[in-house]
Amino acid sequence: MPKEGFVNSITRQSEDFPGWYNDVVLKGELADYSPVRGCMIIRPYGYAIWESMQRELDAYIKATGHDNVYFPLFVPKSLLEKEAEHVEGFNPQVAWVTHAGGKPLDEWLAIRPTSEAIIADSVKDWIQSYRDLPLKMNIWNNVVRWELRTRLFLRTTEFLWQEAHTFHATKQEAEEEVATGLEGYRQVSEEWLAIPVIEGRKTDSEKFPGADFTWCIEAMMRDKKALQAGTSHMLGQNFARAADIEFLDTDNVRKHPFGTSWGFSTRMVGATIMAHGDDSGLVLPPNVAPVQVVIVPIFRKDEEKAAVAEAIDKFQAALAETPEGKAVRVKVDWRDDSPGFKYNHWELRGVPFRLEIGPRDVAAGQGMLVKRVDRSKEPVPLMQLAAELPARLRTYQAELLQRARDFQAENTHKVDTYQELKDGMEAEGGFYMAPWCGDAKCEKQVNEETGITIRCIPFDSPAEAGKCIVCDGPSERRVLFARAY
Amino acid sequence: MPKEGFVNSITRQSEDFPGWYNDVVLKGELADYSPVRGCMIIRPYGYAIWESMQRELDAYIKATGHDNVYFPLFVPKSLLEKEAEHVEGFNPQVAWVTHAGGKPLDEWLAIRPTSEAIIADSVKDWIQSYRDLPLKMNIWNNVVRWELRTRLFLRTTEFLWQEAHTFHATKQEAEEEVATGLEGYRQVSEEWLAIPVIEGRKTDSEKFPGADFTWCIEAMMRDKKALQAGTSHMLGQNFARAADIEFLDTDNVRKHPFGTSWGFSTRMVGATIMAHGDDSGLVLPPNVAPVQVVIVPIFRKDEEKAAVAEAIDKFQAALAETPEGKAVRVKVDWRDDSPGFKYNHWELRGVPFRLEIGPRDVAAGQGMLVKRVDRSKEPVPLMQLAAELPARLRTYQAELLQRARDFQAENTHKVDTYQELKDGMEAEGGFYMAPWCGDAKCEKQVNEETGITIRCIPFDSPAEAGKCIVCDGPSERRVLFARAY
Repeated sequence: MPKEGFVNSITRQSEDFPGWYNDVVLKGELADYSPVRGCMIIRPYGYAIWESMQRELDAYIKATGHDNVYFPLFVPKSLLEKEAEHVEGFNPQVAWVTHAGGKPLDEWLAIRPTSEAIIADSVKDWIQSYRDLPLKMNIWNNVVRWELRTRLFLRTTEFLWQEAHTFHATKQEAEEEVATGLEGYRQVSEEWLAIPVIEGRKTDSEKFPGADFTWCIEAMMRDKKALQAGTSHMLGQNFARAADIEFLDTDNVRKHPFGTSWGFSTRMVGATIMAHGDDSGLVLPPNVAPVQVVIVPIFRKDEEKAAVAEAIDKFQAALAETPEGKAVRVKVDWRDDSPGFKYNHWELRGVPFRLEIGPRDVAAGQGMLVKRVDRSKEPVPLMQLAAELPARLRTYQAELLQRARDFQAENTHKVDTYQELKDGMEAEGGFYMAPWCGDAKCEKQVNEETGITIRCIPFDSPAEAGKCIVCDGPSERRVLFARAY
Repeated sequence: MPKEGFVNSITRQSEDFPGWYNDVVLKGELADYSPVRGCMIIRPYGYAIWESMQRELDAYIKATGHDNVYFPLFVPKSLLEKEAEHVEGFNPQVAWVTHAGGKPLDEWLAIRPTSEAIIADSVKDWIQSYRDLPLKMNIWNNVVRWELRTRLFLRTTEFLWQEAHTFHATKQEAEEEVATGLEGYRQVSEEWLAIPVIEGRKTDSEKFPGADFTWCIEAMMRDKKALQAGTSHMLGQNFARAADIEFLDTDNVRKHPFGTSWGFSTRMVGATIMAHGDDSGLVLPPNVAPVQVVIVPIFRKDEEKAAVAEAIDKFQAALAETPEGKAVRVKVDWRDDSPGFKYNHWELRGVPFRLEIGPRDVAAGQGMLVKRVDRSKEPVPLMQLAAELPARLRTYQAELLQRARDFQAENTHKVDTYQELKDGMEAEGGFYMAPWCGDAKCEKQVNEETGITIRCIPFDSPAEAGKCIVCDGPSERRVLFARAY
């Protein structure tokens, strides 16, 4: 048995990260290309991962007082154009319906790239008084942005997401809502997907078109590049003003409400792949793994098969005795294939634990437990394992988060000059905390010369007088530079 | 207190059914019109009802071995055109994307009216051998059909639904799958929405474009019209042949697989409204009601308010003591409005039970329980009610189903001549079981002359020699005639 595992049908992560990623997605059957340029097909294994994070985020969204709703797929051209920055930002990416029902349309309809414009126009009638606020809505839907270069899950012409839209009487309440949205994303990323994130504010050049400011979480992938994992926007009164939404406040004055919006998409499936995977494929956090434990029966003769089957039945019955044990997602792989084929199949798919049970194990009342993340093997008495499994899955989840935290810490560097940034990035990639004056010109120069972007101004970056790495101008704190997806 | 209830802000059901329906949907805040012609906004109360039926159906779909997946919104024109009947059926209703990313497209993209065409093309590579079958997939998504006349929930240009798509090695297995789909719809309709249905086969003129045959469930609304509540299609080898899908069977022969598809949509929210509602608005089955019990506190002075609040707290604490009680969806309406305003608000929204608690009730340790469906009032000791509430909700659910069954039975008639059908329909509406020869010409004549359609050939319609009501030709069994949504 090769120590490095069974999967050799995929490109090595260490040799060609993008090639590895595509192999994992396609050969792990998470997604596939479609006959439509830039649009993906999400296959059962990938969709189950999406559903798991969806459930988790949906519970947070509801618990924080938001109601699920639905708004139309189409945004009439005139509505999309009401908010000037917004249309400028999205127009180049819009897909247009021009004909329907056998006739050309009087007004073109945009396939929503996001729903701020149609929502602002629609809620006008619902918001009359301060009593109608806050209005806190959430939508699970599909959006379309015509992308030139697409990657499965990470950047697709059509993607699935959640977009929350809220309206508030005061600026302060809206700002608190921006934080509520971001906190949901942090929780799902760190506590569900085991992906540690850096919370911060986007620079003005990177904020959402039409927003006053944008908050985000950024995560480090195994190739040390950054991935923007969720954004939460303070829309101020911009869309309310453009759509003429006014409410009568407690002081009898008519005012525009303050808006927020925040979104989290199927690209997080891509993030989960890239944040934990290794040369053998996926490494899934137990919380999100469609299969948490795969049992591979090992036998030659029929009597052996019967004995192994009996041991597996007993193990599953013992597991089902507690509510927590019953909830463990176990799959027994009885297919007519070799054990090696099955190890390969489930390693590639990142199943946290593999339990091998053969005739000798049955005799000893045990099974061989193999941990996907470090391939450690341990013979464990089956009845003991049934009792311990929920705790072992929790430990695995925690270890995976810690491993990702350590990886991020090891690959985050402080630099004080542009040259150090360039040399460091060239030599080893990673995250770079460096001083910046706040000027968009300096930001743009770095991006144009190196492809590196300012991912965010992290909230936990302390005040520290310094000199901008580009222009030597005064900097108040370090910001996060990285290459990004 | 008017015996007929508190809601007089809506059109009476008995006077103008369509006007009543629109009032319930709009004033009950289930949905709203949008700035896009024919597209609706689903508001929180309506969406919660949809989510409830979605959860229920999703559980059935998964339990019967289907995996959730996602396929693109767009269907290239050339793909839509591969199956001849299919394109002919859907082409007039398609919305077309012709421009995207600032440029005209080389090939127009249809917004999916349904996904058979793109799925058949996509799965070609996944189905190589009999081992890859059956392939059983389900999608929750939005589809667009350009409708000329739209009604909220019932017929909208864009709607939400679930579409299952399956492929099988044998015709028999596919036929069994058509039944599996229909059975899911029957269960959700009858057991969750308390809507009794008639299962049957569509006539050839009413079957899905591209299918060999279509099965359906049909339900009677309170105005005695029919509503098609779900359809399950046997696609035979039609799409597989058009898309060139072949698998190597156990006998080493390459064959086309047999396909099925089945769908269930947001129109079922409209069905739930129309199957149970009355002059005062919605009457919701407890299973699907976002609020099952609304508590209206009644008080004048502050001491009274405190005493009422304490009684309510105790009641809720007692309810929370069992898992079943904890799951009851209770809302306490503490708004600064009159009890009458609140009664009106929640009656319109169809909440099954209203519990009024005032100072005199507190003194007696009781509350006044009002049942929405028949407005019966009953003083009940609060601790007793906490223990009984789950059972009372189950009884309410069962009674609502029985009421709908009785209503359907009372309004279903046997007729033997065309004149009887016309006279009966004119006089009192309803469902009519009548002999038909099976000829599409007779079916068309009835439809053109009266607007009445054959809803289905019910499975439980026994063999019975008779004469077609149109042409006197031989009929093997009665079929279901009705006016329909």
